[in-house]
Formats: sequence, structure tokens, C-alpha cells
Amino acid sequence: MEFMTDPMGIETRSMEIIAPYLKNLNLNEEATKVYSRMIHAAGDVEYSSVIRIHPQAIEMAKNALKKGCNIYTDVEMVRTGINKKKLASFGGMVECLIASPEVAKIAKTEGITRSMAAMRQFGEKLDGAIVAIGNAPTALYEVLHLMETTSIRPAVIIGIPVGFVGAAESKEQLMKRSLVPYITVAGTKGGSPIAVSVVNAIMYVLDNKR
Amino acid sequence: MEFMTDPMGIETRSMEIIAPYLKNLNLNEEATKVYSRMIHAAGDVEYSSVIRIHPQAIEMAKNALKKGCNIYTDVEMVRTGINKKKLASFGGMVECLIASPEVAKIAKTEGITRSMAAMRQFGEKLDGAIVAIGNAPTALYEVLHLMETTSIRPAVIIGIPVGFVGAAESKEQLMKRSLVPYITVAGTKGGSPIAVSVVNAIMYVLDNKR
Repeated sequence: MEFMTDPMGIETRSMEIIAPYLKNLNLNEEATKVYSRMIHAAGDVEYSSVIRIHPQAIEMAKNALKKGCNIYTDVEMVRTGINKKKLASFGGMVECLIASPEVAKIAKTEGITRSMAAMRQFGEKLDGAIVAIGNAPTALYEVLHLMETTSIRPAVIIGIPVGFVGAAESKEQLMKRSLVPYITVAGTKGGSPIAVSVVNAIMYVLDNKR
Repeated sequence: MEFMTDPMGIETRSMEIIAPYLKNLNLNEEATKVYSRMIHAAGDVEYSSVIRIHPQAIEMAKNALKKGCNIYTDVEMVRTGINKKKLASFGGMVECLIASPEVAKIAKTEGITRSMAAMRQFGEKLDGAIVAIGNAPTALYEVLHLMETTSIRPAVIIGIPVGFVGAAESKEQLMKRSLVPYITVAGTKGGSPIAVSVVNAIMYVLDNKR
């Protein structure tokens, strides 16, 4: 039984297989890397038609990372998947508050989801940071609401909730209402590894230029 | 802006939306739950045609969980996503060795991937346990090889690597060669949240019967 075990070989081969599905999209080199990693993370070439990258999103994310920004996530799986060693090399760290007892208390008192309470709890920290949401539509709504009611402005929002109840709607709202650049996936598809793949792709792009 | 924040309501609504895509598959109630959670985790109804559940897999997984079996994963994202509180209520725990320095050393010495070395390192522990693979084709190959060369028999293999380089082939081998029941997804799709959704779905099925 022969199979590839070399990570760089797998990466290269994967990009070759995905390339034909991107050829009509007029993507620059960096966007191609982001698309390829998202498609690879889902094992689904149909992502090529539903990925939505705001024209300034990759640039804003790169600048924020270079300044050592932190990344704030809705769920532990997104926190887990982000390459924290690489992020630390830029000076940043990842935080997730979904399991925080204080957040659970706020959620109960205010009658909101823990994901919403977590975003509210991050508050000012979100300013200039990267927000990476891979699961909860309500977390995404809360960030949109925070931007509309305060001066908090993340550098970029990677907003990719998944599923059939509210996810597509929340991502539509992100594209309509966000006051900062975003990366998302139209429709019901998405999830933690897709959000993770965006963050890691942009870090690798940046790393290759150091 | 109105949106659902009640987890049980979201679960019920999601299953209603997915139900029409399952109606020609003749699934029993438990398989329906597993399919629904997998489809929800991907936000992709096309999973209904590529999910493959060995006839004895759910039963074997339930029996193993009832006996307090552990779950062994290939990557941290799968470990993170599994409901560990629920698993502990049955007496089990989750282990992942991908970040173990000892595994890194074995991988280097033997010239194999860390995912393979991790599975080899679990060794006898895999006997009677649940194996949940959401990322690495090589981890899946290693488990197949272990079964063929030793008396180690997991209770069930949830083998759902994702991507365009080796994932589909590894899952085909799982269906052909596995000496124990399996749950998988044919083709390139899959990933950590899909593997996680299977484990959690079966725990919830079991929990509802306690």
C-alpha cells in the first residue's frame, strides 16, 4: 500500500487538484491560497462558488497579524485548530470564552446564548483583533451588534457558522452589515475547520514573506 | 433581528429540515440521528448520499460506550469537539497523542507520520475502544494495519479523513479491509466536526435511553 506521508508534498498535490476549480475566479496568489485551504479543509470543491472574501480582508488580516493581534473564537474547536506556535511567532494568541463560568452566568442572567455572552465579554479586546467564528450564528450577530452600537472594530471577521438554523442568515447579515472586511461562506456550509483554514492560510502567506 | 437561541429548538428544527433528504434511505431512528448530526455539522445535505454506516456499527459503539470505553483520536480538534462530560458520565475519556514529544520522536526514527506513530503508540489500548479519525489518512491506514498484524480490535472505527490526497482512498480501504464495524463518508468530504458529530450523536442516543 503506497500513500503520501510528506506534508509539503500533500499540500502541493492538493493545490494542484483544486486549481482547475479556481481558474475562472480571477484570484490573486494570496486569495488562491486561502480558497485552496478552505476547499481542502472541507474536501469539497463546491466551496469555490460560495466563498466570499471582502476585497480588503486578506490585507487587513495580514496587517493585524504583523502587529501581533490576538484572535478571538466562538468555540474551542476553532481555538484548537489555529496554529498557535505560528501565531505566537507574530506576537499574538488565541482566546475562547465559551467554557468560562463567568460567561455562563452572564448568558443565564441576560437570557442570551453563551456564544453571545462570550463575544460581549471580549468587548474592547475585539478592537483591531481577528474574530474567527466557526459555529455559532448568535456569536456573529453579537459582533455585528457590537460594531453598530460601540466604536469596537475588529481588523477582520472570519465568520463561518454552519448548519440549517440561522447560519446562512447570519452570514448574509455579515456581508450586508459588517463595518469591517470579512471572509465567509454563503449558504449552510462552513464550520470550525473552515474558519481555522482561513486563519492558518493567511499566517502561512505572511510567514513565506518574512 | 429575530433568531433562535434555544439549543433544543435549533436541534429539532435542524432535524426537520434534514428529514426530507433521508426519507428514501430506510434508516432506523438511531441511524437517522447520526445522519442528521453529520449533515448538520457539514451544513451539507449531499452527505446523505455518501455516509456509510456498517450495519453493526452503532450497536457496537453503544455497547462499548456503556462499558465505559475510551475514545482515541488522531487530532486535537476531534478530541476537543467530543462531549467529554457526557463521555465521563459513561466512564470513558478521550486521548490524543499527536502533540506528544515521544510520538514525534518515534515518527522521526521510523520515518512515519506523527498520526501513524500516535496510533501505534496507543497499541493495545485500542482494543475494545472507539477510534475517531477526522483528519489523517495515515492514521486510518495504521489502524487497519494494526488489526491485520495483531489481535487488537477496536469496537468500532469512525474513520472520516478529509481532502484530496489519500483521504478517499483510505476510507475505501476502511470499508474493504476493516475487521470491525465502521462509520465513514465515501469520497473527499469529511473532517473533524463530522467525526465528532458521530461520537456525540451516539452518546446522545444512548443517554436518552438511560
